[in-house]
Amino acid sequence: MAKLFHFMLDPYSRRVRLALQEQNVAVTLVDEKPWALSRQVVDLNPSRFLPVLQEDSGAVICGVEALGEYLEERITSEKSLLPGNALQRAEIRRLVAWFDVKFYSEVTEPLLTEKIIKRFMRTPSVPAMARVREALQRLKPHLDYVAGLAEQRSWLGGEELSLADLAAAAHLSAIDYLGDVNWADHPVAKSWYQRIKSRPAFRALLSDTLPALPPSAHYADLDF
Amino acid sequence: MAKLFHFMLDPYSRRVRLALQEQNVAVTLVDEKPWALSRQVVDLNPSRFLPVLQEDSGAVICGVEALGEYLEERITSEKSLLPGNALQRAEIRRLVAWFDVKFYSEVTEPLLTEKIIKRFMRTPSVPAMARVREALQRLKPHLDYVAGLAEQRSWLGGEELSLADLAAAAHLSAIDYLGDVNWADHPVAKSWYQRIKSRPAFRALLSDTLPALPPSAHYADLDF
Repeated sequence: MAKLFHFMLDPYSRRVRLALQEQNVAVTLVDEKPWALSRQVVDLNPSRFLPVLQEDSGAVICGVEALGEYLEERITSEKSLLPGNALQRAEIRRLVAWFDVKFYSEVTEPLLTEKIIKRFMRTPSVPAMARVREALQRLKPHLDYVAGLAEQRSWLGGEELSLADLAAAAHLSAIDYLGDVNWADHPVAKSWYQRIKSRPAFRALLSDTLPALPPSAHYADLDF
Repeated sequence: MAKLFHFMLDPYSRRVRLALQEQNVAVTLVDEKPWALSRQVVDLNPSRFLPVLQEDSGAVICGVEALGEYLEERITSEKSLLPGNALQRAEIRRLVAWFDVKFYSEVTEPLLTEKIIKRFMRTPSVPAMARVREALQRLKPHLDYVAGLAEQRSWLGGEELSLADLAAAAHLSAIDYLGDVNWADHPVAKSWYQRIKSRPAFRALLSDTLPALPPSAHYADLDF
């Protein structure tokens, strides 16, 4: 069986796990810590990005950008996560990049770095609370953006579930694990998140637990 | 004719310009300044990323990630910039992401921000020379990485020219404009760059000139 080297709260690893589940592709998960990668994963991907997929053939596919397209091209599945014509696919990819670049740099990265990585590194350091506060402020307009999309369309990228939803859910679920999403203030975004969180593909993510850092109280709750 | 809203030294805009030239697609270029985007481009792409392509139909495609794939799917051209099978295409996309995420954050972004953007903003500020020095240090192993790829393969992503070469050349040409690449110390990377720089698709980039900041002496020279 193929192996996916991943970190539980890494949003890029989460998106690939969700895509594999949606496409009914079974893999063996291998836990990695971004702050102390195994020798094996560094050998497979000297650039040190997660996730990394290693197929039975030995073929290695590195990075979320390549993996999203690779699964679409390679996996024989009736389900496309980039549905539609070239323009509709461009809109999905625009949103994926928006979450992976903008949302990540402004929200996911500072929260994960300050709350998780600094805590678990060999030489732990104190979280910069100013960065945490700034990230939480920036999260608010971004949840309004999600709500705006969800009001116009069945799913964020269009009329069908797509990689755009998986990217958004991957980032939001990672910070929801930390208890950092105030869903009550964002009912439309919450309603979209409830729908995707209830999908069977989401179940494995909801049972994730980091040693020494259990998830927030409502993290796995479908009626949060 | 379609319009491409771009900034001359933005590596993402440069890659799309190169791809359009390689695929023989003519567009009208509209100059934008990242630090003072026009109202028109903000309306087209509220996320404020360049480049943005507006087709004659009015269709708008935003962001380098979506555009790379869109041109591949949409433009009727004999020339693919993602050649090969799914694994070979994954390798090209891995490298594109490596340049766009890692090389950009460690080299291109600090050099452009400190040397260009801080200078031209409405309220100019002094460049942080420590950031510049750090970026130039990081450039060296990255040029060794380019050389390692160029020694193994005809082009960076495989046996054919691909988006990986265009991504690498887009970043390197932007900082070469600033005179920040010491090619003499990196003969193998230089040899690869000479090949891509000599292509007809590169010509338009080599005639770029920013008002008030002319290119480095060897920027447009094919025998640099």
